[in-house]
Amino acid sequence: MGAQRQLQLADRLANLGTETAFAVSKAAADWAAAGNDVFSFHLGDIDLATPRNIVDAMQDAIDAGYTGYCAGAGIEPLRSALAHDIGSARGLDFGPEHIAVQPGGKPVITKFIQTLMNPGDGVLFPSPGYPIYESQVEYFGGTPMPYGYSMTPTGFEIDMARIEELAPHARLLIYNNLQNPLGCESSREEMERIAELAIEHNLWVLSDEAYFEMRYSGESTSIASLPGMSERTVILYTFSKRFAMTGWRLGCAAGPTQVIEAIAKLNTNDESCTTHFVQHAGVAALSDPSGAAPLLEELRRRRDATATGLAEVPGVQFAVPEATFYLFPRVAEAMDRVGHTEVGEFATAALHATGMSFCTRHHFGRPLPGEDDRFIRLAYSGIGADRIGVGLQRFAEWIDKGTK
Amino acid sequence: MGAQRQLQLADRLANLGTETAFAVSKAAADWAAAGNDVFSFHLGDIDLATPRNIVDAMQDAIDAGYTGYCAGAGIEPLRSALAHDIGSARGLDFGPEHIAVQPGGKPVITKFIQTLMNPGDGVLFPSPGYPIYESQVEYFGGTPMPYGYSMTPTGFEIDMARIEELAPHARLLIYNNLQNPLGCESSREEMERIAELAIEHNLWVLSDEAYFEMRYSGESTSIASLPGMSERTVILYTFSKRFAMTGWRLGCAAGPTQVIEAIAKLNTNDESCTTHFVQHAGVAALSDPSGAAPLLEELRRRRDATATGLAEVPGVQFAVPEATFYLFPRVAEAMDRVGHTEVGEFATAALHATGMSFCTRHHFGRPLPGEDDRFIRLAYSGIGADRIGVGLQRFAEWIDKGTK
Repeated sequence: MGAQRQLQLADRLANLGTETAFAVSKAAADWAAAGNDVFSFHLGDIDLATPRNIVDAMQDAIDAGYTGYCAGAGIEPLRSALAHDIGSARGLDFGPEHIAVQPGGKPVITKFIQTLMNPGDGVLFPSPGYPIYESQVEYFGGTPMPYGYSMTPTGFEIDMARIEELAPHARLLIYNNLQNPLGCESSREEMERIAELAIEHNLWVLSDEAYFEMRYSGESTSIASLPGMSERTVILYTFSKRFAMTGWRLGCAAGPTQVIEAIAKLNTNDESCTTHFVQHAGVAALSDPSGAAPLLEELRRRRDATATGLAEVPGVQFAVPEATFYLFPRVAEAMDRVGHTEVGEFATAALHATGMSFCTRHHFGRPLPGEDDRFIRLAYSGIGADRIGVGLQRFAEWIDKGTK
Repeated sequence: MGAQRQLQLADRLANLGTETAFAVSKAAADWAAAGNDVFSFHLGDIDLATPRNIVDAMQDAIDAGYTGYCAGAGIEPLRSALAHDIGSARGLDFGPEHIAVQPGGKPVITKFIQTLMNPGDGVLFPSPGYPIYESQVEYFGGTPMPYGYSMTPTGFEIDMARIEELAPHARLLIYNNLQNPLGCESSREEMERIAELAIEHNLWVLSDEAYFEMRYSGESTSIASLPGMSERTVILYTFSKRFAMTGWRLGCAAGPTQVIEAIAKLNTNDESCTTHFVQHAGVAALSDPSGAAPLLEELRRRRDATATGLAEVPGVQFAVPEATFYLFPRVAEAMDRVGHTEVGEFATAALHATGMSFCTRHHFGRPLPGEDDRFIRLAYSGIGADRIGVGLQRFAEWIDKGTK
């Protein structure tokens, strides 16, 4: 049998998705390289420096010789610090046995799915949403059950009717409150209804809390803190946004011990451990998180600049989120003005006409049938307030001029 | 259906193996904590410091702001440096498009299997061998086809008859020259025969070259450099051993571009990217690898001390490898002397009688039917030459005294 066979890739790769936003980065870089001024609203990255105490702690850890392997689940001081930090902010009684350290928040997605989803199981996940949810569900043979949102005067609300319809046929639910790309947050009522459905239909829940600390007013609530939820919920936690550590790759899964043990076994198979001295830096971040406050202040300035600038753009509708670093304006009428019907073409035209670079709804999962997809995502984590103002002013002028 | 179901883990976890050597570490730590002197021959880790130029380059990269995300396949300077380093040492014409940076060497194992093995495909892999081969083959539904070794006066040779028998039914072959745990190396003839079979039966090959640079005489050869092999071989490369960077988590897959592109897509799904500034440290390591030489000199002293001490132990047979940092002595007669028939029990007895801590053949995959399993692995990467001498002297005295 071997001799006739061609060298080919495995069949499962046909079901592997990816993040298409990289194409936007490339288009922006190409346009800038051609000598144009580019306003980078497309990056979910942070252009601010990591607080110095974290960097110094890593250097100390290297000097102390923490350059060898460590346990797959993470070093004990970091697991304990995470248990305390995550638990106390959510009213949950976590110990180190509830924590599996990861090289970033993202690995929690694939490991949640690998440890809890059988092929054929239904998985509810948000769309628009982080595209890796859909990719990993399909890659490991699950049945994708995307649920959508509708726009409200103050943000977006989950299409609860769809969750109610699909939950009896699902086994897992992925929930991303403080949502990327929408920037929205559940009402207490909405979160409670989701928890109720998860309990009624005995679903495992991934609560993606990447933006839990990234908020400008109010307090975040974890669905894991609702009654009956902690035993079925795995929390995705990351240092990436809170401490401007996206490129450090440090995060964890927090949840029931039997899931955490299975995830730690995957760690041993997949990458041995998370970079040893980076974990010591994480301990320092949690023991003195004061460096996070100036980051949040800067992001708030940028959010306000984005909201102010966007208010001057004709034909857009948007809410101003109190969390995340994204705005998700509806641009249907703006598109009409410049003669575009397809939002991807609109984005390309905007780049070439104004230098504004941004992702669209299409970078966050496949649109649902009948959905109004004329939305864009403006990320203000990688661009300063002054540049935000200039870019949005050009954008406003372009839209205002229209096709005339 | 949902309501009746219990919260349970996914079925696929039943097929996930792990590294059982951690139990040896724990037994050693417990014995030491009880006030006993422990000689650590069980660790495949290195207790030497990473060369300073590498540490300094990482600090410079942080100061220069490389703390954000980077491309899933790795930063271009590191991909280029790896292409040059790996290619020139093997006579292969590699460019950056042949390299996918990874958080360590280990991730290459799962990603090789995920990108090239379909469920049911046969996979040849060494046993004794790195236990994650077997674990990942079974986890992703492959048909495990372990192949063994037999002892020779100068080391070990592969059971070629078994590979010849199984290769027609296989789709992948995992080959680990400069072998862990055996410390052995293929003759030119053996490597050529394996290449011949891989080409005849059109197999994909993973060449685990974690110890390619860890040698005390002679030169390493990659099976990828044999005619007809580069287009079917993925090389596992790691900084871990060569630069004492085990805990840094930096390595790469090097091979055909279509496989590398698929692996990079897995990177984007699994962990986004490898720690950004650690990649800059890798560039520095390759542009000035002079810090690796003193590490190798120290390891050679330890190897010599281990061989010298082991020669005084009654009832052991061993070769002295010119590569890796392992010896794999046969201890059948020594076991007889102290009245043990099971090698795991022998290891526990040795720890308690002498403080000697080591892994056995059973930590490196399931033994093959009829195999003589009375072998132990002595790793000298985590213990100095003086301590090696003391530990082996106690071991010799214990064996010599026997059950009398």
